[in-house]
Amino acid sequence: MDWKPDRYGELSLQEQIVRYFKEGILRGEWTVGARLPSQRILARLWQVNRSTVAQAMAELAALGLVEGQTGGGTRVVNESWSLLAAPPTDWGQVAESGRHQPNLPVIQTINRMEADPGIIRLGTGELAPELLPGREMARLLQEGAKRPVALGYEEPKGNPALRRRIAERLQERGIHATADSVLVVSGALQGLHLIAAGLMRPGSTVLAESPSYLHSVQVFQSAGIRLEGVPMDEAGLRAGLLERYSKQYQAAMLYTNPTFHNPTGKVMSGSRRKELLQTCRELRLPIIEDDVYGDLWLDEPPPPSLKSLDNHGDVLYVGSLSKSVSPGLRIGWVVGPRTAIDRLADIKMQIDYGASSLSQWAALQWLEDGWHERHLEQLRGQLRKRRAAAAAALDREFGGLARWSIPGGGFYIWMEFNRSLPMKQLFDAALREGILLNPGMVYGSEEKPCLRLSYSYASLEELSRGIGILAGLVRRL
Amino acid sequence: MDWKPDRYGELSLQEQIVRYFKEGILRGEWTVGARLPSQRILARLWQVNRSTVAQAMAELAALGLVEGQTGGGTRVVNESWSLLAAPPTDWGQVAESGRHQPNLPVIQTINRMEADPGIIRLGTGELAPELLPGREMARLLQEGAKRPVALGYEEPKGNPALRRRIAERLQERGIHATADSVLVVSGALQGLHLIAAGLMRPGSTVLAESPSYLHSVQVFQSAGIRLEGVPMDEAGLRAGLLERYSKQYQAAMLYTNPTFHNPTGKVMSGSRRKELLQTCRELRLPIIEDDVYGDLWLDEPPPPSLKSLDNHGDVLYVGSLSKSVSPGLRIGWVVGPRTAIDRLADIKMQIDYGASSLSQWAALQWLEDGWHERHLEQLRGQLRKRRAAAAAALDREFGGLARWSIPGGGFYIWMEFNRSLPMKQLFDAALREGILLNPGMVYGSEEKPCLRLSYSYASLEELSRGIGILAGLVRRL
Repeated sequence: MDWKPDRYGELSLQEQIVRYFKEGILRGEWTVGARLPSQRILARLWQVNRSTVAQAMAELAALGLVEGQTGGGTRVVNESWSLLAAPPTDWGQVAESGRHQPNLPVIQTINRMEADPGIIRLGTGELAPELLPGREMARLLQEGAKRPVALGYEEPKGNPALRRRIAERLQERGIHATADSVLVVSGALQGLHLIAAGLMRPGSTVLAESPSYLHSVQVFQSAGIRLEGVPMDEAGLRAGLLERYSKQYQAAMLYTNPTFHNPTGKVMSGSRRKELLQTCRELRLPIIEDDVYGDLWLDEPPPPSLKSLDNHGDVLYVGSLSKSVSPGLRIGWVVGPRTAIDRLADIKMQIDYGASSLSQWAALQWLEDGWHERHLEQLRGQLRKRRAAAAAALDREFGGLARWSIPGGGFYIWMEFNRSLPMKQLFDAALREGILLNPGMVYGSEEKPCLRLSYSYASLEELSRGIGILAGLVRRL
Repeated sequence: MDWKPDRYGELSLQEQIVRYFKEGILRGEWTVGARLPSQRILARLWQVNRSTVAQAMAELAALGLVEGQTGGGTRVVNESWSLLAAPPTDWGQVAESGRHQPNLPVIQTINRMEADPGIIRLGTGELAPELLPGREMARLLQEGAKRPVALGYEEPKGNPALRRRIAERLQERGIHATADSVLVVSGALQGLHLIAAGLMRPGSTVLAESPSYLHSVQVFQSAGIRLEGVPMDEAGLRAGLLERYSKQYQAAMLYTNPTFHNPTGKVMSGSRRKELLQTCRELRLPIIEDDVYGDLWLDEPPPPSLKSLDNHGDVLYVGSLSKSVSPGLRIGWVVGPRTAIDRLADIKMQIDYGASSLSQWAALQWLEDGWHERHLEQLRGQLRKRRAAAAAALDREFGGLARWSIPGGGFYIWMEFNRSLPMKQLFDAALREGILLNPGMVYGSEEKPCLRLSYSYASLEELSRGIGILAGLVRRL
C-alpha cells in the first residue's frame, strides 16, 4: 500500500482511514468480497494504534460497507451509496472459479513476510542481496550498452547466441547439447510449468523425491497433475522403489533434483544415478532433472548429471541463473530432445512470447565474458563462511534436540527433530520473535517434524542469533 | 540449426548430412516420432541441391532410421543400432498428451517464416527493428548503470516504483489506479493468460469482437475456454447484441480491444463505450479491456478508455510497452480491483516468479525520465509516413478489388475483398513471391475473404512493392 494516514493532516487518523477505504470501495479498488488486511498488519504498516484502526473499521461496518468475518479478517460487503441497482462484479467469487489453486496459507504467509525488511529469514532459498553481483552487472551493462540494444522479439527458443553459449557450457560438463536443443525460459519454475502444460495430461501423476520442493509450488498441481513422493536414503532417491511406485501410480514422469537437493541438501551418488537412468529406461519413465544448484558446489564438483549419462533422450534437463547469479533476471533453460523442446517453445510463445530480450542479452555477456566464473569463485567463499557459521550455531544449540548433516553445496541444511513438535506453533512463535522458518510440511514432509534451514540469505550474525532463538523456542515447546 | 555441411570437407555433402542425422538420433536429439524439416527447407538452409538432401534421406530410410510420411514430412522411426531393448521415450507422443494445443498450422508457418530475413512482412503486428529505440535504450542503460543494479526478486505485483509510475500515467488519462491495483506482467499476452488461468473456469465462454486477435493466439482455448464473436459496426463492438450473446453462451467475460482494434483498426466511439459499460453492468459481465495500442494514435487521441469510465471495478485493463517501445522487454500491466489483481499476482508467482527485474528497471527509467514521450513523438511521425505509403499503394493497386479504411492509429488496415477468393492459395502464392500475409481466417473471419495489412513492419519501399505484387496475385486468382 502506498497510502499512509498523515499525522499532521486536518482530519483525525481514524477519519482519514475511513475515507481511504470508502473512496477505494467507491472506485472499485476494493470490491464486494475483497478481504482487507488485518487490523494488526494495518496498525503496524501505518504505525498507528491498533484501536484507531479498529474504530475506523467499526465505522465502515456501521456504514454497511464491510463486515467482520468469523475466523478473523474483514470483508467488503456493500457499496451502499451506489445509485445503480446492479451489484458490482464480485471478483472474489470470480477468482475462486479459476483453475489455479491459491498457494497454501503457510506459503502465502512466508511470501508475504519475506517482504518485511526486519525479519530474519532462516529458510529462504535465495542469495542475500549482498551476495548478488549488482556492481558487476552494472559494469557489464555499461560496457554492453556502448552499442544499440536489440529490443525486438527473440526467436521462439530464445536468443540464438545465448542458446549456443549455454549449449557450450553444458558440453563442457559432458552433456550433448546444441543450440537447437536449448529453450531459454523465464526461470526454472517456468520450465516446469511449460512441461506440465505441454507434455502432461491432466490427471496423470509425477513421481518426485520425498520430501520435495515441488510441494511448495503449485506448478504441477495447478495443471491437474498429482505428485507422489518416493523415499530417499543417503544416496538420494531410492531407485529400487521406482518400479513399484511407477506401476502403482501409473506415473507419467519422474522429477528429480539429484544435486544439492531442495530441501534436504543431499547429492545423489554416481552409481545411484546410473541405476536410476537404467530403471527409468526400462520403465519408459521420462525424467525431469532439476539441476539449478549444480554450480554451487562448495567442497568438490558433484557427480556427472543424469543428462550427461543419457544417450537416448530420456531426460529433460532444467538449469537456471536464479540460484547462482540473479533471481530477478529470470533466465533459465530446458534442454532435451527436439520434439519436446520445440513443443515447449511453441507453448512459451503462446504464453508470454519468450523471455525478456534485455535479460537474455545481459545473460549472454555474463556467460561469455568470464563474469560467471569470477563471480562463482567469490560466491563459494562467501557461502562457505555462512555454512560454517550455521554449522557452528547448530552444534552449539541443537545437540540432542535434532539431527542434521552439513551439505557439500547448495543452500540447505535439513533438520529432523528428535521428538515430536507442534510445527505450526513453532512457526508462529518464531514469527513473533522476528524469525521466518520454512517448516518441512511445506515440502510434503508431514510425519516427522523437520525444518529447511538455509545459509544463503541470513547474515553470519543473523544465522548465529536466529538459530539460538530457535533452539530456545524448541526447548520451550 | 547451427550445423551446416562443409563444402570443402573430406566427406561428400550427402555423407555429411547422413552422419549429422545419424549422430543426432543416437544422442537422442531427434527421438522416435520427431519430424525432420522438409527437404525443401533443408536444401535452402544449407544451400545444397534438393536432390542431395533427398538422397541422404533415402539412405537414412534404408538404415531404418527415418520414414517418409504420407502428406509429406519425414519422421524418425527407429534407432536400429541401439543395444538396449527398451525403446526411447517418444516425446512426440508425450507432447500430444498435453493440455495446450499447438498453434494453427498457418500461424506456425507465419511464426516460422517471420524468422526469414528476406521476406516482406505485410501483416506483422510489431514495429520494424529500425523503429525501435535501441540507441535510446542503450543511453538509458549507460546512465542507469552508474549505480549497482538490483538483481533480486521483485515483489509479487512487480517493482513498486514502476507500478507507481504506471498508476500515475493512467491517472493522467482519467483512470483511478494506485500502485496496489497494478500488476506488472511479461507482456499483455501473459496478462490474458493469467486471467484465463486464474479467473475463469474451464468450459466457460468469453465474448470478443468478431474478428479478433484472440483467435490467432491460444491463450483462452488452451485453458479450456471457448471464444464467441460479437459482430462489430463502424462504432465498434455492437453492444446492443450483448444481452442475447451473453445469455445464449452463458458468457463469463467480455474481452474487447476498443482502441485501434486488432485486426480491423477500428476505434469504438465514446457513446458506444458508455453503452457497453452500462450493458455489461446490467448483465454482470466483467470486461477485459485490451488497450495496447492506445499510445499509438496518429491523428488525434482516442476517446477515454472503458476503465476511465468504470466506477465500479467491472473492468480489468491491460496495457503494454510491447507495441510502442519494445516487444523484447516483455513489460505489460493489468490494472483492476485488488481482489482480482492479488489473485493474478499469486498465480504469476506460481508460474514464473514475476517479470525480469532488469526489464522492470529499464521500463521504470524509460517512463520516468521523458524517454517515452520523446520516442512516441518521433514514432508517430514514422508511422504516419508508412500509413500514407500503404494508403497510396492500396489506392493505386486495389481500386475495385477490395474495400478498406485507413485507421487513425495503431498498425492495421483491414481489407475485405469484393469477390470470393481462395485465401489459402493466396497465402501460399504470396509466400512463393517472398511476401508473408496474415489472412482473415487467423482472426476467426472465415466467411469473407479478408486480410490484415500492417504498416508497422515493412519499409516504405516494401509496402509499395509488396502491395503491388499482392494486387497482381489477387487479379490472377
